[in-house]
Amino acid sequence: MARTGSASVTAGPTLAVVAREAGVSVPTASKVVNGREDVAPATRRRVTEALDRLGYVRRPRFDSGRAPRLVDLVVDSLERSGSGAVLQGVEGAAREAGLEVVVSAALGRDGSGPPERGWLDRLVARGSCGVLFHLTEPSANQYAWLHQHRVPFVMIDPVREPPPGVISVGATNWQGGVTATEHLLSSGHERIAVLAGPRRTTAGDARVAGYRSALSAAGIAHRPEYLRHGAATEPAARRRTHELLDLPEPPTALFTCSDRMALGAYQALADRGLRVPDDLSVIGFDDLPEARWLTPPLTTVRQPLSEMAATALTLLSRLMDGHHPESTRTELSTRLVERASTAPPRT
Amino acid sequence: MARTGSASVTAGPTLAVVAREAGVSVPTASKVVNGREDVAPATRRRVTEALDRLGYVRRPRFDSGRAPRLVDLVVDSLERSGSGAVLQGVEGAAREAGLEVVVSAALGRDGSGPPERGWLDRLVARGSCGVLFHLTEPSANQYAWLHQHRVPFVMIDPVREPPPGVISVGATNWQGGVTATEHLLSSGHERIAVLAGPRRTTAGDARVAGYRSALSAAGIAHRPEYLRHGAATEPAARRRTHELLDLPEPPTALFTCSDRMALGAYQALADRGLRVPDDLSVIGFDDLPEARWLTPPLTTVRQPLSEMAATALTLLSRLMDGHHPESTRTELSTRLVERASTAPPRT
Repeated sequence: MARTGSASVTAGPTLAVVAREAGVSVPTASKVVNGREDVAPATRRRVTEALDRLGYVRRPRFDSGRAPRLVDLVVDSLERSGSGAVLQGVEGAAREAGLEVVVSAALGRDGSGPPERGWLDRLVARGSCGVLFHLTEPSANQYAWLHQHRVPFVMIDPVREPPPGVISVGATNWQGGVTATEHLLSSGHERIAVLAGPRRTTAGDARVAGYRSALSAAGIAHRPEYLRHGAATEPAARRRTHELLDLPEPPTALFTCSDRMALGAYQALADRGLRVPDDLSVIGFDDLPEARWLTPPLTTVRQPLSEMAATALTLLSRLMDGHHPESTRTELSTRLVERASTAPPRT
Repeated sequence: MARTGSASVTAGPTLAVVAREAGVSVPTASKVVNGREDVAPATRRRVTEALDRLGYVRRPRFDSGRAPRLVDLVVDSLERSGSGAVLQGVEGAAREAGLEVVVSAALGRDGSGPPERGWLDRLVARGSCGVLFHLTEPSANQYAWLHQHRVPFVMIDPVREPPPGVISVGATNWQGGVTATEHLLSSGHERIAVLAGPRRTTAGDARVAGYRSALSAAGIAHRPEYLRHGAATEPAARRRTHELLDLPEPPTALFTCSDRMALGAYQALADRGLRVPDDLSVIGFDDLPEARWLTPPLTTVRQPLSEMAATALTLLSRLMDGHHPESTRTELSTRLVERASTAPPRT
C-alpha cells in the first residue's frame, strides 16, 4: 500500500533521473523537453531515447502541492449537442481525481480541424498536465510536439484511427450497428436501408459494418442501393431519404447512423405526408437529448458519452502518474433505447 | 493611447499602494486579502476600507507574464441544454481577451445550489483571476469570501436578484414576454394562457409581467385561471396543460415560459389527440437547440445565451483591469423566432 501510494505521488522519473540516464546535465535535458533548438542533434537523440525508455511524463510548472492540477479538454465545437455530456463526464471524473478542467474549442481555419497554433505554448506555460481531445485531433506537427514535450493525452471518440500507441475511448460502434439492425429485423423488416455519414470515419464505418453483419447473419442479401453515404447533416439526410423513397422498391425501415440524420429523415417523410413509424420505421444512433423531442420520440442506439469522457479522464490521470495501459483502445457498450419510431412493416 | 494601454496592463493599484493608503505594512495588507485571522480587527477594517477606496483587484498568483490568465466558469449543470451556448460564448470571448476558462459544475447537496466548500480555496490556489456564474449563485458566505479576497465575478442570468453592486447579464425578459403575447394577439387570439415556472425567479417573473402588460395594453382582462405557476419540468408542464384544457373555457393559445415546458404542452395535446397549432397555438421561450426538433417546429422567443455569456466575460475582464461599470445590470434583447406552432384561432 505504501509503495503504491508513493508511486502515484512521485509520478514517474524526474528530469534529473532522465539526465543521468542520458549522460547529460539537467539543464540540457530540460532544453530538449522544452523544445529549445540549442542542443546538438546527437545529444537531443540521447535525451529523447532516455525519456522514452524511462516513460518520463511532464510535470506541471507550478507544482506547489497546493495549486490544483489542470488538464485541457479540447472539443471540436461547443455548439454540438453532446458536448454537454462530454463535459459533464470529464468534469465529474476530474473532480474525483483532484484535477480541474480548462475547456477550449478547436478553431481551425474552417471552424473545425486541429487546435490553432499558439494553443500548445499556452498549455505548457499554464502548466497543464494532460489533454483530452473530443472529435478533434492534433495535426501531425502537434502530435510530434505533444510527444516531444511529454504531455500525455487521450482521444475521446476520434474521427479517424489515431496513430499507433495513442490511447482512445469510443463506443462499441459495430455492435451498436448490429443492435439497431437486429431490432428492425426482429420487428419483421427485411427491406432495411441505412443512412451513413461520410466514408472512412472510425465510428461510421463500424456502424455500417454492424448493419451488414446483422443482415448477413439473417440471410438477407445486401442491396447496394439501400446504403447511402453522405454528409451527416439534416438537409443532406433529408435528400438521401427522398432518394430512398423514390426507389422502385423503397425500404420499410431506416437505420440512420446518427440522431441528427434521423431528424432529416423525419423531415423528408413530413414533406410527403408520410408518417413514422406507419410508413417507415426509423432508428437512430447517439441518443442526443433532442431524440426525445421528435414526434414520435426516436428509438435509438445510445452511446454512453458521459461515461466515455469520464473513462478518458481516468486513463489520462493514470498516464500522468506514469502508468501506461497495455490496451490503447477502450470501447464502452451501446444499448437500445426503445421509444416509438419503429413498428412492424405494413403488410 | 499610451495611458490607456498602460492602465489596462497595470490593472489597478498594487498591494503596496493599498498598504501605504491604510498605513500598514505590505505583509499585513496581504494577510487581510488572503483571509488570515492574525490581524487586529481595527487594522483589518483600515485595510478593507483602503481596498474598497482604491478598487483593488486580486492578482493571479503566477503572474509570470508568460502563463495565460485563468478565469472560472461555474454552471449549475452541464447536462442542461443551453450550457453549450454559454460555454461557447465564454470561450470565444476569453480567447479574444487572452484568458482561459476552467469549467466546473456547482454540485450542492441536492445536485444544484452554490458551489461546494473547498472550491474557493482551489480557485485562489490556482491563481484564478475572476469568476462567472451561470444559473447558480454563491452562498452568503461565498459572497463575503469573494469580496474579502477581491476576486471579481459576474453573474450570467442569475435566478434571483443579486445583492447590490453585483454585476450581472441577462436577457430582456419582460420585453420577451410582451413579444410572445403580442405575437399571439396579432394572430387573433384573446384566450391566451401562460405556463409559468416557479414564482420569484428574476427571469420568470419578468416574462409573466410582460405577458400581463401586453394583454392589458390590448384591453384584455387578465384571467387568473389562465396563469399557471409550477415546476419548469416537462411532466409538471404536461399536467398544467391538461388543467388548462379542462377549463370550461379553455385557452386557444399558450405561452410557455420555457421551451422545455412547451415540450410538456405538446405531450398533453398528444395525450388527447389534439394538434399544434390547429387546436392550440404554442409559443416558447429560450430557443433551445431542441425547439427545431418538435413537430411542428416551435415558434419561440430567442434568448441570446452565447452573446450574454460573451458579454459577461468582457465585463469580467474589465473588472479584472480595475474598471467598474456604472451600470450593474446588462440586458440583451430577445427576438421572435417564427416557426410553425402558432396560427390564428379556429373560428
